[in-house]
Amino acid sequence: MEAWFFENQTGNFGIKIRIKSVLLHEFSDYQEITIYDTLEFGKVLVLDKAVMFAEKNEFVYHEMLGLVPLFSHKNPERILIIGGGDGGVVRECLKNPFVKHIDLVEIDKKVIDVSKEFFPEIACKLEDRRVRILAEDGIEFVKRINEGGSEDEKYDVILVDSTDPVGPAEGLFRRDFYEAAAGSLKDDGIFTAQTESPFFNQNLIKDVGKIIKEIYAKSSLYCASIPVYPSGLWSFTAGSKKYDTKVINESYNNFDFGRFEADLKYYSPEIHSSSFILPNFIKEILK
Amino acid sequence: MEAWFFENQTGNFGIKIRIKSVLLHEFSDYQEITIYDTLEFGKVLVLDKAVMFAEKNEFVYHEMLGLVPLFSHKNPERILIIGGGDGGVVRECLKNPFVKHIDLVEIDKKVIDVSKEFFPEIACKLEDRRVRILAEDGIEFVKRINEGGSEDEKYDVILVDSTDPVGPAEGLFRRDFYEAAAGSLKDDGIFTAQTESPFFNQNLIKDVGKIIKEIYAKSSLYCASIPVYPSGLWSFTAGSKKYDTKVINESYNNFDFGRFEADLKYYSPEIHSSSFILPNFIKEILK
Repeated sequence: MEAWFFENQTGNFGIKIRIKSVLLHEFSDYQEITIYDTLEFGKVLVLDKAVMFAEKNEFVYHEMLGLVPLFSHKNPERILIIGGGDGGVVRECLKNPFVKHIDLVEIDKKVIDVSKEFFPEIACKLEDRRVRILAEDGIEFVKRINEGGSEDEKYDVILVDSTDPVGPAEGLFRRDFYEAAAGSLKDDGIFTAQTESPFFNQNLIKDVGKIIKEIYAKSSLYCASIPVYPSGLWSFTAGSKKYDTKVINESYNNFDFGRFEADLKYYSPEIHSSSFILPNFIKEILK
Repeated sequence: MEAWFFENQTGNFGIKIRIKSVLLHEFSDYQEITIYDTLEFGKVLVLDKAVMFAEKNEFVYHEMLGLVPLFSHKNPERILIIGGGDGGVVRECLKNPFVKHIDLVEIDKKVIDVSKEFFPEIACKLEDRRVRILAEDGIEFVKRINEGGSEDEKYDVILVDSTDPVGPAEGLFRRDFYEAAAGSLKDDGIFTAQTESPFFNQNLIKDVGKIIKEIYAKSSLYCASIPVYPSGLWSFTAGSKKYDTKVINESYNNFDFGRFEADLKYYSPEIHSSSFILPNFIKEILK
């Protein structure tokens, strides 16, 4: 048998992954959900025809979105994750020693359910007592906190683990959302969002970068290599009210990153800093 | 019209690029040569069904193979490039202020000819008076220098700009070639070869790394993001008899990298060093 899944990543470029079987194909209230078992990457989660992650290299995206912002914050106790129903970013965040509470606001409960069923190694921390799962719209959620939330309800770090800026995630790339998110952060809070490919989505990176720069005292972009994402290089945009996200906060000076050695397949203190060192063509985008 | 070029990058993963036209399709004595005009990447050179480079992002590979080794060498006057008939690495090497002579040993003269015709911006320095083009087998060439070459004939830097380790380039990934290359270098020489994808070709990287480590005083691996190559992340293995390839040699302390600002789209002094900072899963390969 030779069967392939094709993803059109731009109108003019795509990837193909050879599949062993289709493990799931359903339509939730929000999107088309497919899980393939593949020869190259193990099981792969596909939402609205775009690969979200593959078992074999999900560690890159989840470690880099989860760990970089958290380890640049002095004491990230309260975390908000918008999207990320698969649980990969939750799993990474819980490696930070300060984390006391994570709110996971995922609009599509179905993603959480299928992840628990098919990706137990990714969803493994969704039942942790520190994690509260809210199946609702992340945009409405931060607007509510921003407009009426008490200081205690605000977050140390907000992470946006969204799909591409079409369909359910479209609003997560708009100024009103970014402003409400900033208002839902404490005075030393850090915001980080996935912001697509530096090769294919330069306008998006430029536009988001401008807004984040206006809203936050410090803004920055970092990158990581993810084979199943368009172009293989992915960007994250960070806005910070106080801390320099490029460096690990000194509160971790005595922290033993080695305790996670087998667990951390991409992230390390050296990668933390070097992921902010950008090739000239990416620096040009941000000018 | 909707037509696509497909490349099977592994047996179970591939890419597709939408084409506007087929500009050339010929068989040389060594390989199948195809040039497509594409919507996403401009013109693309394909050898034996594998993308060699795309106009729109060739700068990454050519800058990183050409500039990293040269700027870690104190005074790289004599350069040998094996393969690279397109001229991209020659173009980059000539940005180094010490370079006096480049021997380009490309087995397939046809690649040089089509590059001059279809990629004038890449082949632009092939007629430079410092460049000598030899259409012959790079393996035989270094064996000859190694066995009977005078000290003057030896090189400061040898760069291997090869196709994948199947077909004409197979011998360029073997120990006898690496040893002959080392013997064709001066006492402070640097050797660098492209060594495929850290996600897909871990055995190759491990095997080449072991041999280079045995032959050279210093060995190292660095990476760069190339969207049209398998997994989007590419590796280069460097062996050095004296210099630390991870750092720019102090002979460039007063060198103005800014003079190439518009020219250098990927490489910078900061990228030079950070490209050697490897994610944990790549460090594991090299253990």
